[in-house]
Amino acid sequence: MSGRIRSEAFKSKVMSAHDAAELVKNGWNIGFSGFTGSGYPKAFPEALAAVIDAAHHQGEEFKIGVWTGASTAPELDGALARTGGISYRAPYQSDPEMRTAINNGTSYYQDIHLSHMGPQVSQGFLGKLNLAVIEATAINEDGDIIPSSSVGMNRTYLEHADAIIIEVNSWQSEGLYGMHDIYAPAGFLPPNRVPLPIQHPGDRIGEKVMKVDVDKVIAIIETDSPDRNTPFKLLDDDSRAIANNLLDFLGNEVKQGRLPKNLLPLQSGVGNIANAVLAGLLEGPFEKLTSYTEVIQDGMVDLLDSGKLTVASATAFSLSPKAAERMNDNAAHYSKKIVLRPQDVSNHPEAIRRMGVIACNGMIEADIYGNVNSTHVMGSRMQNGIGGSGDFTRNGWISSFVTPSTAKGGAISCIVPMVNHVDHTEHDVQVIITEQGLADLRGMAPRQRAKLIIDNCAHPDFKEPLREYVKLAEKKANGMHTPHDLATALGWHVRFLETGTMVQ
Amino acid sequence: MSGRIRSEAFKSKVMSAHDAAELVKNGWNIGFSGFTGSGYPKAFPEALAAVIDAAHHQGEEFKIGVWTGASTAPELDGALARTGGISYRAPYQSDPEMRTAINNGTSYYQDIHLSHMGPQVSQGFLGKLNLAVIEATAINEDGDIIPSSSVGMNRTYLEHADAIIIEVNSWQSEGLYGMHDIYAPAGFLPPNRVPLPIQHPGDRIGEKVMKVDVDKVIAIIETDSPDRNTPFKLLDDDSRAIANNLLDFLGNEVKQGRLPKNLLPLQSGVGNIANAVLAGLLEGPFEKLTSYTEVIQDGMVDLLDSGKLTVASATAFSLSPKAAERMNDNAAHYSKKIVLRPQDVSNHPEAIRRMGVIACNGMIEADIYGNVNSTHVMGSRMQNGIGGSGDFTRNGWISSFVTPSTAKGGAISCIVPMVNHVDHTEHDVQVIITEQGLADLRGMAPRQRAKLIIDNCAHPDFKEPLREYVKLAEKKANGMHTPHDLATALGWHVRFLETGTMVQ
Repeated sequence: MSGRIRSEAFKSKVMSAHDAAELVKNGWNIGFSGFTGSGYPKAFPEALAAVIDAAHHQGEEFKIGVWTGASTAPELDGALARTGGISYRAPYQSDPEMRTAINNGTSYYQDIHLSHMGPQVSQGFLGKLNLAVIEATAINEDGDIIPSSSVGMNRTYLEHADAIIIEVNSWQSEGLYGMHDIYAPAGFLPPNRVPLPIQHPGDRIGEKVMKVDVDKVIAIIETDSPDRNTPFKLLDDDSRAIANNLLDFLGNEVKQGRLPKNLLPLQSGVGNIANAVLAGLLEGPFEKLTSYTEVIQDGMVDLLDSGKLTVASATAFSLSPKAAERMNDNAAHYSKKIVLRPQDVSNHPEAIRRMGVIACNGMIEADIYGNVNSTHVMGSRMQNGIGGSGDFTRNGWISSFVTPSTAKGGAISCIVPMVNHVDHTEHDVQVIITEQGLADLRGMAPRQRAKLIIDNCAHPDFKEPLREYVKLAEKKANGMHTPHDLATALGWHVRFLETGTMVQ
Repeated sequence: MSGRIRSEAFKSKVMSAHDAAELVKNGWNIGFSGFTGSGYPKAFPEALAAVIDAAHHQGEEFKIGVWTGASTAPELDGALARTGGISYRAPYQSDPEMRTAINNGTSYYQDIHLSHMGPQVSQGFLGKLNLAVIEATAINEDGDIIPSSSVGMNRTYLEHADAIIIEVNSWQSEGLYGMHDIYAPAGFLPPNRVPLPIQHPGDRIGEKVMKVDVDKVIAIIETDSPDRNTPFKLLDDDSRAIANNLLDFLGNEVKQGRLPKNLLPLQSGVGNIANAVLAGLLEGPFEKLTSYTEVIQDGMVDLLDSGKLTVASATAFSLSPKAAERMNDNAAHYSKKIVLRPQDVSNHPEAIRRMGVIACNGMIEADIYGNVNSTHVMGSRMQNGIGGSGDFTRNGWISSFVTPSTAKGGAISCIVPMVNHVDHTEHDVQVIITEQGLADLRGMAPRQRAKLIIDNCAHPDFKEPLREYVKLAEKKANGMHTPHDLATALGWHVRFLETGTMVQ
């Protein structure tokens, strides 16, 4: 044994992942830990996949509902999706095999705002939760659970599941103890809710550990496996250009007196562009920054090290293997500057709006009137999901969206006449940024936005076709508020589906 | 003089609406009081319209920006829109002439979440506010302003405008004093915001009056004119059927233990269906109800009178002439049960989410996957605007949308393959209700929603055509998450534009 299980009541429940997986019944809903590839159970899902495969080989029906914090890893989403045994998946995923199961119709997927998942599970909107499978760093003498590299939905799943399985992962650093802030006041649901007592990203309002009812624990599994942790990619020119456009904008907001010198708490999506923004901040003029976000990436750790960022609040890590090693070696040090919260706190509209977060999220495409599609490829196909972008966009002080102006080697314009799916409405989108430039849509009516987005953000190859669409739309439209020619508004997408390019 | 102006410093500033209007300069942005046809200035806008007309007759440019709380009345939106002199309008309107100016391209209109207007004005996102024109019930000895039948954006406009004009309207009852709750703590903007201290719809957290800087007041105008107040329409069968579907649903939620017996605070949009819901509640089994909403309608006053509703929080009245008379006669009595707040408090995500509001809003159309269009007719034409529906929908405990299943005598299906504009995304819409039935979309993936919405909500004439679309879409789609045939997804709207009906 690893020595990480320090409660006698829990020690007696240790078993193999295989034995634990055999406890699962067809039709169960299972709440797994895991958020952006960190803190997910490493052994149980593959063991469960084997159980499901075996049942299928016997010709037996075996399907489960898979709930998580957000995206996980091949060992969870991949392994279970491959069985064809996921009937329902929520609230977010980004796994290639899970995506295939969703898009070929094998699995139903509900794409839910990450802040909404907790309330919806708590109030029983998604049905009964049969089992919670949660990764932990350790179980202490009192039977309290020390979370690992993500918090996500763990508290809610532990509270509401009929049965609990804990995976204790010795790869996770014991230095993480104290970094987590588990908020769960008695009146967490209406009509008894109280104000969320956060006024600053670093405020600690909860416990360092998660409480569980030991009688509900049906298995403990020991593991020693790293988080998925994808390697850090070198920044490309487009990402740098987009980051610079955003940083120039923020600098001007400070100059105009619309933002304080140290900005407001920063939120950023995951990925290349976000890392470029963080790298830009490292070289930039802003000091005493704070972050209230979902995920801690490499660039955020660099900013903390530099002293430019004083504190970061999130619900999970998403680090490269190298940064994860650094985190594991120095977790106790970082726990003074990093707070990991449940995702219904990290993404809570109340906190985001109160603190006035500066939100920056990626997108698939925007249309000329400022509607944003974050999830769908050509109308029908799910890419990943909305994740927390809606929580931050709607409630943030400044809401910005970023994308390169084209995709697929120039075959796709990421600025289109009409988006093929709307995840963020024209009412919520303030700033659109590509490597070409930035469109500040605040105070603008739809036709004004169209001019600005085409002039500033569209790729030169698509500027004239977009202007031609506007001309046509203004001629054909039944009103000049948001002029559209409905017969051709989605024509660029149709052309791509038929010919492989949006270029005429 | 009416005796309503009790401060000497203000008395000296009384002048005619015409003289006050002549103080306005071309290019000004003006923040008017007014919300759903109540509490708007009655004399100044028409006087200003005359000034603008005169300038236009001289060949001079004269355009202004018109900001309000929400919709106003013919005397404001109508009079000013007729001049062609409104360059920009925000955040909401519902006036026929204003709508015409927007849809013929004369005026730019920005359709803004009502809870966002305050922060955006305060931080200067919409530019400089030159003048505030605010209706009051009275000005007391200390120079404090007693609001009238709406609060809306008044506090923000008074604080941020360079100059102020007050219209003191003796038609408004002095009994309104004490009904208002004007919240404006020092740290109202980030990074200094504190938790909004509301835990119950009746909580009072602010002042009874609005403070103004007397030096900024350039005119006081006296009026004695009623609010617009549209007559109460008799409830039709469709509205009753929709209301019954909602009330059955709520009853079942109580039975399932997902709602307390006295429900949670109710929000409802304005209009026939909302009044039918309120009438249904009057006859229904629920007791000790509360309301945290935007607008107090006739039905809400009846519910208060009956004792079934204990308290109602809103930002404005929208009453029939008869109910307005009753309110004016008994305002002091009602001020114990009604709280009128600034709209960035009535619509605050923080309060709505904390208390778990049950939201019910009208819509123009929904699509089979649960996206809702609240604003646009056939893609391009603005009807009214999103108003506060997004504030309540995104943050409410239960988010429902209501509409008759058809419009224009059956030529339009309000359930369509793809909405022509998205105001509320599939991530935000939980319940769709027509006179045909109710679709509970909680826990449902898009394809599951499609079946339920078509089966339960679509009009019988359109059920088969919708099912045929689904079949076609599943054949043509590039993914089975949200199957669409982009070439025909908006075909029903195109057909309506070309032939005057969606019927094939």
